[in-house]
Amino acid sequence: MEKNSARALDKLFHPRRVAVFGSVKTGKIAHQIVSQMEAGGFPGQIVAVNPRAEQAEGFPGIRAAADIRALEGGADLAVIALPAPYVEEALRGCAEAGVPVAVVISSGFREAGNAEGERRLAAMARGRGPRIIGPNCAGVMSTGSRLFASIEVRALPGRTAFITQSGAVGGAVLALAGQRGIGFSKFVSYGNRADLGELELIEYLAADEETAVIALYLESITRGAELLEVIAACSRRKPFLVIKAGRTSSGSRAAGSHTGCLAGSEEVCEAIRAAGIEELLDLCDGFASLPPLRGGRIAIVTNSGGPGILAADRAEELGLSVAEPGPTTRRELQGFLSGRCALGNPIDLTVEGTGANYERTLRAMLASDCDGAIAINVATPFLDSVALARGVAAAAAQPALAKPVAAAFMAGEMVAESLRVLKRSGIPAFPTGERAAFVFSKLREYYGRSARVAESFRVEERELPLSAPVLEPQAVSFLKAEGIPFPASRYCRSLAEVEEAGREVSFPLVMKAVSPEILHKSDSGGVLLNLRTREDLLRAYGELERRFSAFSFRGVLLCGQVEGGVEVIVGLKRDPVFGPVVLVGAGGIWTEVLRDVALRIAPVEEGEAMEMIGELKAARILSGFRGSPARDREALARLIVQVSLLGPKYPAIQELDLNPVLVLERGVFAVDARLIAGEVRD
Amino acid sequence: MEKNSARALDKLFHPRRVAVFGSVKTGKIAHQIVSQMEAGGFPGQIVAVNPRAEQAEGFPGIRAAADIRALEGGADLAVIALPAPYVEEALRGCAEAGVPVAVVISSGFREAGNAEGERRLAAMARGRGPRIIGPNCAGVMSTGSRLFASIEVRALPGRTAFITQSGAVGGAVLALAGQRGIGFSKFVSYGNRADLGELELIEYLAADEETAVIALYLESITRGAELLEVIAACSRRKPFLVIKAGRTSSGSRAAGSHTGCLAGSEEVCEAIRAAGIEELLDLCDGFASLPPLRGGRIAIVTNSGGPGILAADRAEELGLSVAEPGPTTRRELQGFLSGRCALGNPIDLTVEGTGANYERTLRAMLASDCDGAIAINVATPFLDSVALARGVAAAAAQPALAKPVAAAFMAGEMVAESLRVLKRSGIPAFPTGERAAFVFSKLREYYGRSARVAESFRVEERELPLSAPVLEPQAVSFLKAEGIPFPASRYCRSLAEVEEAGREVSFPLVMKAVSPEILHKSDSGGVLLNLRTREDLLRAYGELERRFSAFSFRGVLLCGQVEGGVEVIVGLKRDPVFGPVVLVGAGGIWTEVLRDVALRIAPVEEGEAMEMIGELKAARILSGFRGSPARDREALARLIVQVSLLGPKYPAIQELDLNPVLVLERGVFAVDARLIAGEVRD
Repeated sequence: MEKNSARALDKLFHPRRVAVFGSVKTGKIAHQIVSQMEAGGFPGQIVAVNPRAEQAEGFPGIRAAADIRALEGGADLAVIALPAPYVEEALRGCAEAGVPVAVVISSGFREAGNAEGERRLAAMARGRGPRIIGPNCAGVMSTGSRLFASIEVRALPGRTAFITQSGAVGGAVLALAGQRGIGFSKFVSYGNRADLGELELIEYLAADEETAVIALYLESITRGAELLEVIAACSRRKPFLVIKAGRTSSGSRAAGSHTGCLAGSEEVCEAIRAAGIEELLDLCDGFASLPPLRGGRIAIVTNSGGPGILAADRAEELGLSVAEPGPTTRRELQGFLSGRCALGNPIDLTVEGTGANYERTLRAMLASDCDGAIAINVATPFLDSVALARGVAAAAAQPALAKPVAAAFMAGEMVAESLRVLKRSGIPAFPTGERAAFVFSKLREYYGRSARVAESFRVEERELPLSAPVLEPQAVSFLKAEGIPFPASRYCRSLAEVEEAGREVSFPLVMKAVSPEILHKSDSGGVLLNLRTREDLLRAYGELERRFSAFSFRGVLLCGQVEGGVEVIVGLKRDPVFGPVVLVGAGGIWTEVLRDVALRIAPVEEGEAMEMIGELKAARILSGFRGSPARDREALARLIVQVSLLGPKYPAIQELDLNPVLVLERGVFAVDARLIAGEVRD
Repeated sequence: MEKNSARALDKLFHPRRVAVFGSVKTGKIAHQIVSQMEAGGFPGQIVAVNPRAEQAEGFPGIRAAADIRALEGGADLAVIALPAPYVEEALRGCAEAGVPVAVVISSGFREAGNAEGERRLAAMARGRGPRIIGPNCAGVMSTGSRLFASIEVRALPGRTAFITQSGAVGGAVLALAGQRGIGFSKFVSYGNRADLGELELIEYLAADEETAVIALYLESITRGAELLEVIAACSRRKPFLVIKAGRTSSGSRAAGSHTGCLAGSEEVCEAIRAAGIEELLDLCDGFASLPPLRGGRIAIVTNSGGPGILAADRAEELGLSVAEPGPTTRRELQGFLSGRCALGNPIDLTVEGTGANYERTLRAMLASDCDGAIAINVATPFLDSVALARGVAAAAAQPALAKPVAAAFMAGEMVAESLRVLKRSGIPAFPTGERAAFVFSKLREYYGRSARVAESFRVEERELPLSAPVLEPQAVSFLKAEGIPFPASRYCRSLAEVEEAGREVSFPLVMKAVSPEILHKSDSGGVLLNLRTREDLLRAYGELERRFSAFSFRGVLLCGQVEGGVEVIVGLKRDPVFGPVVLVGAGGIWTEVLRDVALRIAPVEEGEAMEMIGELKAARILSGFRGSPARDREALARLIVQVSLLGPKYPAIQELDLNPVLVLERGVFAVDARLIAGEVRD
């Protein structure tokens, strides 16, 4: 990150004087911002800047100025809510007054077809002007500084920084969070990101001591590879949550993003993914409030069977274990619980469960081999839920254990006061036990992930010694030279060459038609298998020559026939956003039927390649299945690494498909190659 | 349904006089029930029955009696909240007083180890006693009769009947529903179901005019086949929603259900499934409020991009289409919307969208080929959401169109009043657009399902002409006689018989070792393929005889070799709850790797068998894939029907596996059979 943007963001989040540009008449946006700032108790100074130096209606204490340049001492932050045509001039004033950063609320730029106006803002930010958040955004909050420069609901204080491309999603999240008492350290709606965007914000917030968790709502990705790098680096320091919107065709059309087609962008991202607003909020609350979940074993303590069962079902469906207590713990529980309680897991205290029951049961379970616990209470109009909340809070207040405890207290007004008790005790409460179980599964995913070592690769770019269209024999000999294992093969351009080859090679053989016009050779009958004699060869050649005479037939490729491997596909694609991406998938028609594919930004190291293999549904087959032997995963991983290195090394490779690759008990062979060479698209 | 239970349920839901048994001191359960009934405005008469004829504290108007037998005119309904040991005597009194139905709130029966006490209640219900709901339940509500005989939050009036095995889940659902203004026609917590349970309730409610939708929370299943029949019949009349809890090992352990292992029970159920309480509530609201969704095309109209995109993503992920409007509709929209609006789909009216914009846009989209619409509003503190709600309501109030319109207005206090406006207009409002999209996907699933014709099968039971262990040659000849297609085959018990067969049969052949001890022949090398000559046969026989000499070798089965079909598996299992179940799945190792299997209660008709095939991931392969030919699905469907008929016909068949079955371009062959015969388990 450039020094410049870190300094600008420092000022953005901790300004002493804020200049608000725009009409401060009631109902106007600048007036709304001033009133939110005042209501939030901003301790610094607010200055309303507008041509007639009008004071904000209803705020006689707030100073006004006609021109930022005339303001002695300038300002740390400008918030601009002017009509689009006046924004540039305001920024020019800010530049002259030395204002380091501006939030441009105003719309009417790229999103409205005014790309030129937005380019001019960006140019100013790159030049002498202030750094810019926006335009077309909903503003900024920094609860530690009591700064609420936004038209949205004011955030409660908290430890999660929420940055969002969509102002409306920001507003919805803040409103829902407020209802549930969930707070934020920072809120940034960055809109069109003419200058500062998620990259700079993530990098800043990764080091921000007020921020324990970062949450991002993202629609379109521009600098994909950088983004993933920043997210990976950030994830090693603190949990990083993301909603990626525009995952489907209509969604991505509406998001105006061109990454919808890149299924890979989902898989390659190390962030903890939420599907929507409610999941994101649940995760914000869980990650910001809870200590790490060190293993996958959880206890569910409840006063009612059904909701406990639903939570257990969800937990196990998401890979957690809801195992019964061992004999020692069970004896301990029997010591103080009535015989009516179910001592499995979920542990059902029944409707007679008291606060003390919750406390002692949770303590006993957490002291055993459970890694965390969920406490469920279903209230009736005649039950004292506050006492139960106090019991849960007492059990969770055990710094020695440092295991996460969450609650699901249902529902409505009956539990409103008990939810406040839980909140004050730092215990996140979810609307249902199922949602608590979801959060625990993500805690597990994050804390269970081994810290990946970031290895930096150095790959030198080379010119590709091939030109389009690349025939298969050329691709094969090029790839062999790059270390990709193929069976012995020979390119024969005529019957005479086939005859000659027939004398030297060992059977059985495969013969493939060579032609720049045939893409899917096997579908069109261009591959003949099981050739066992010289006669077979000659007959086969005649057949292919006849069949493809109309398709620029250029001879055949003779290859040794590999028997009995497990088919996979390995490939390389060049993505306009993420650059070279390597993939491995289940082979044959299953690739398309199942979309059983794992992707990574290229290049990858062997450990990552092994991870990719492990992600496949087909992984079980490679491990040996129902008596069939285990296959050489390591050799496959090495092949994936080799293919991945070709991406950065040869920018002219547009696409490479090794389909199939046969994975044997020892070793691996690519038996078919398709390489598309061409200019790199921009 | 027996007449008796229908009459009892009539009285249960529409009683004129209710006798409440138990202590009516403040804090006691009978007192809570009396106060809920009073607060709910029960128009009939309440009588408190307890030994000293004490009046309920705080309710001087309520009559009391010492003995139900002494009460002239008896009662239509008894609600019993006595300690368990006194329940039987109370029921005896009810029997003598002619009370037709009793709700036993009391716990302390089977759930507490007192199975004997519960059996006695059941025996009374079967004899002269009243029919029983419970014991160990949370009571009954019937909003049309203003009957609230329960300790839970009182339900609002509505059109959904909610029946639940868990009282606590019932309480949580009622509390959450109350918060959202979602109502119910009936509520029944039926607890231990000593007598009346979900079967009788569903059958009654299917015909109940006050009930448009039925929702069930179910933990354990006892009479599985009957339940599915009742659900299927009900689903043809009205939407049937279900949460099946206890899906995982810990969940089913806690549910005390022995159906957890029955993965099939999930697939064979025609109900609309909800994973948890919130999904169930969303579905209740949607199905009870909305007209049918006739196709899968929906419009999303929003005033903010991000939340619209999230809803579109979810909708498309769930199989709906969020397609752009055609040119005519687009021109119409351009006529009244500002140039800033995005006219794709989602249609973004921007933050400036008015109530009139919502109304006209929704009308235009619904008048086009859209089948339904979701209206999203993300409020800010400075936006008039009530006006937007009125616009949505105006558009939805178009009886001519009868297309479903739902809303997602966010969030919290800012939209409280607008949610009331929507509710009054009969428009269901969901917490997020994603959740509205989920509901629309389920509307589509329900209304898109073609009305299935209920064909009743008449299958006569027969004795199985085989005894355990069944060798493959015996299984094959039995199955051939039952019309299952196998390739020509011959059982040879000696080398001499093989020699003889070799003179008559046509090659190529497959030879399989026959032995009662070999289960997975191919895994253990017991199948030899590609035998093309007599010499091959003799060599092969020697090899198998040698290999399996230690495994009760009983000769070989010689079969014609079928080439080039798509492998599937067809089978029959006998489930302890559901009885015979037929299955079809992707073949080979993929069956286990993918669990790509469809199941149905046997027998099935051809239409159902085609449906099963359509559910497979492998269905695409059967339809012809990347140039490979389409396979004979009809022949496969006929085979499934034939296999399914064997279930009811031969109760002694425990299990049958045809693995693989080869599906050819014309016809289908089973090439391997494993049949397990034995006594039917109970």
